Amino acid sequence: MNYSLNSIPDRVAKPRESGYTMAMDKGLSIRETEDFLEVAGDYVDIVKLGWATSYVVPNLQKKLDVYKAAGIPVYFGGTLFEAFIVRNQFDDYRRVLDKYEMTFAEVSDGSLEMVHEDKCQYIRTLSEQVTVLSEVGSKDDQKIIPPYMWIRLMQAELDAGAWKVIGEAREGGNVGLFRSTGEVRSGLVEEILTKIPFEKILWEAPQKSQQVWFIKLLGTNVNLGNIAPSEVVPLETIRLGLRGDTFNDFLNLEKPC
Amino acid sequence: MNYSLNSIPDRVAKPRESGYTMAMDKGLSIRETEDFLEVAGDYVDIVKLGWATSYVVPNLQKKLDVYKAAGIPVYFGGTLFEAFIVRNQFDDYRRVLDKYEMTFAEVSDGSLEMVHEDKCQYIRTLSEQVTVLSEVGSKDDQKIIPPYMWIRLMQAELDAGAWKVIGEAREGGNVGLFRSTGEVRSGLVEEILTKIPFEKILWEAPQKSQQVWFIKLLGTNVNLGNIAPSEVVPLETIRLGLRGDTFNDFLNLEKPC
Amino acid sequence: MNYSLNSIPDRVAKPRESGYTMAMDKGLSIRETEDFLEVAGDYVDIVKLGWATSYVVPNLQKKLDVYKAAGIPVYFGGTLFEAFIVRNQFDDYRRVLDKYEMTFAEVSDGSLEMVHEDKCQYIRTLSEQVTVLSEVGSKDDQKIIPPYMWIRLMQAELDAGAWKVIGEAREGGNVGLFRSTGEVRSGLVEEILTKIPFEKILWEAPQKSQQVWFIKLLGTNVNLGNIAPSEVVPLETIRLGLRGDTFNDFLNLEKPC
Repeated sequence: MNYSLNSIPDRVAKPRESGYTMAMDKGLSIRETEDFLEVAGDYVDIVKLGWATSYVVPNLQKKLDVYKAAGIPVYFGGTLFEAFIVRNQFDDYRRVLDKYEMTFAEVSDGSLEMVHEDKCQYIRTLSEQVTVLSEVGSKDDQKIIPPYMWIRLMQAELDAGAWKVIGEAREGGNVGLFRSTGEVRSGLVEEILTKIPFEKILWEAPQKSQQVWFIKLLGTNVNLGNIAPSEVVPLETIRLGLRGDTFNDFLNLEKPC
Repeated sequence: MNYSLNSIPDRVAKPRESGYTMAMDKGLSIRETEDFLEVAGDYVDIVKLGWATSYVVPNLQKKLDVYKAAGIPVYFGGTLFEAFIVRNQFDDYRRVLDKYEMTFAEVSDGSLEMVHEDKCQYIRTLSEQVTVLSEVGSKDDQKIIPPYMWIRLMQAELDAGAWKVIGEAREGGNVGLFRSTGEVRSGLVEEILTKIPFEKILWEAPQKSQQVWFIKLLGTNVNLGNIAPSEVVPLETIRLGLRGDTFNDFLNLEKPC
Repeated sequence: MNYSLNSIPDRVAKPRESGYTMAMDKGLSIRETEDFLEVAGDYVDIVKLGWATSYVVPNLQKKLDVYKAAGIPVYFGGTLFEAFIVRNQFDDYRRVLDKYEMTFAEVSDGSLEMVHEDKCQYIRTLSEQVTVLSEVGSKDDQKIIPPYMWIRLMQAELDAGAWKVIGEAREGGNVGLFRSTGEVRSGLVEEILTKIPFEKILWEAPQKSQQVWFIKLLGTNVNLGNIAPSEVVPLETIRLGLRGDTFNDFLNLEKPC
């Protein structure tokens, strides 16, 4: 850090299992990727190329090279997995992962109907090839999954080999974990945490108010995702109690005044 | 594209009359312009320098050179035309178009009152010099134009020589075609389409929900405008059914599962 | 300017006491800083490194060098001052200001409780070292300060040596001067202006509708702050009556039609 402040909350150091920040790249140029890493490379743990943007961006290989050189792993959004599945092209998907030397992949069913045992089988199969993040929650704001079902799905996916499970929110933060207004379904989150270990969950939380809510509830080292590249530094200050929103939440350790 | 997916909707290839994406540049630097074109140059058809930003940006000529080298035509926002008209400086405006070797221009009346025959005369006159886009709709959210009048205005402006007519929405997407909440005036759009050919209309649709609405109604190759530079790639994925919002809208062609 | 338009409102030239634009940098890279200055360097008067982002960004010294070379002064957000105060590290804060050769500093109490005489004492002390901007208003949307108290606080802080007083709004524009919806507390603003000189106040107004409101009320040369870097050029066009929002507000001088 650039200067010394006392009583700053302890951040787990990278590489880490908690305190994880996942950023979403939905089409950065090479220079923008370099700029993002210059500013936020110390704070971001993994980058998702949002949904199927990797299909259309003309700089895919070069961008993957930039992230690799910086030691930041990258994965394709779950919607890309689903786009291959709905077309009966799962083997093609595995070849794409190989072609680009991907080390992580997401398995999700946010945009299609999938028998859950099939989803778990995809997790098992892909786990032999890459580290799997699986996602629970629909992108359809009309499909409300009750808390006991979130827990059952998450546990089964971890048992099938998922490294972490992701709570769905989309880029907008208005489905899945959140109401259409962006408000957190707080009872859902609290009930999930009675059964699934804190560090195994990556909460999508693109809006600042959502990030603040999770940090107030779960502390500095909660895993958060779908963070816009320009919001990684602001998020880090919220984690450290250095923005108005959490300014008074980390001072009780040794409050000096 | 970077890999193969079956059953992707057919996009008309550039140069094209439909499937047009118009992006709005409201003050990009030279490097940002280059970055935008690196990522989205294959998907954007034309760029508008928003309203009168071209008056104040210090890099105007150099930026026009960058777009020209990439083969992307550029035009000044309609508010600039209106700023010259309201000052009785139409001839000066024509000289500005010449000075910067502009090949497109917009004629609009979103911020002032203009007799419609005068507007049509400006379209006729400018059509001798450049390709004219004309815009219908007020920037004032209190001025509601009924559907039959939208149709009459659009037809008269096409008859006067406009290449395409633009449906007003502003950068925010909250006037003209849309209610102040951003919701589409869907009855208006559907009525317009009973009379004005699909490919002659460029719909301003800066918000994602608005883009999705038009693509669901009018398909992959609808003309959309006022797209932020960073949203051109996301829009392209929505057009291709590769984002959650339209994932299930283009699969019925030869749905494999 | 790139071409000539008649009847453009007079902007006070830089360096200036009114017509000030303060932009907020919350973690730009070096290239992004250069790009920002390429486009908006002629229009921005001062830059705030938002809240305590200066603690975590890895490019702090180099970025300060870029701003210095462009002649744009920079200051750390008030929350950083408060973070030092709440830890009893005021002397450390003064050393940080020296280390980075800062010429401006902000004194605020938006996130903590501070006896007002103590705040004024900090203003007096820091005024010996730097030019002080002091800020009035809470970041807590539940803490409503009545107008007479805003005036009393602002006057006392100016008397203590503050160069200008800032009206609080945060990055979001939803506290202090504004209701949680972003709507201006217009009675508050008008009452403040009966007592505090126009040019001594810097109004935080991050949302476009807020900028428009102030420019319509107070004219081209109102001091506005918390402007996102990419919004400085758009704001300049609003100040000049060259965007739809203020198009008709500056034409009555010598209205030609």
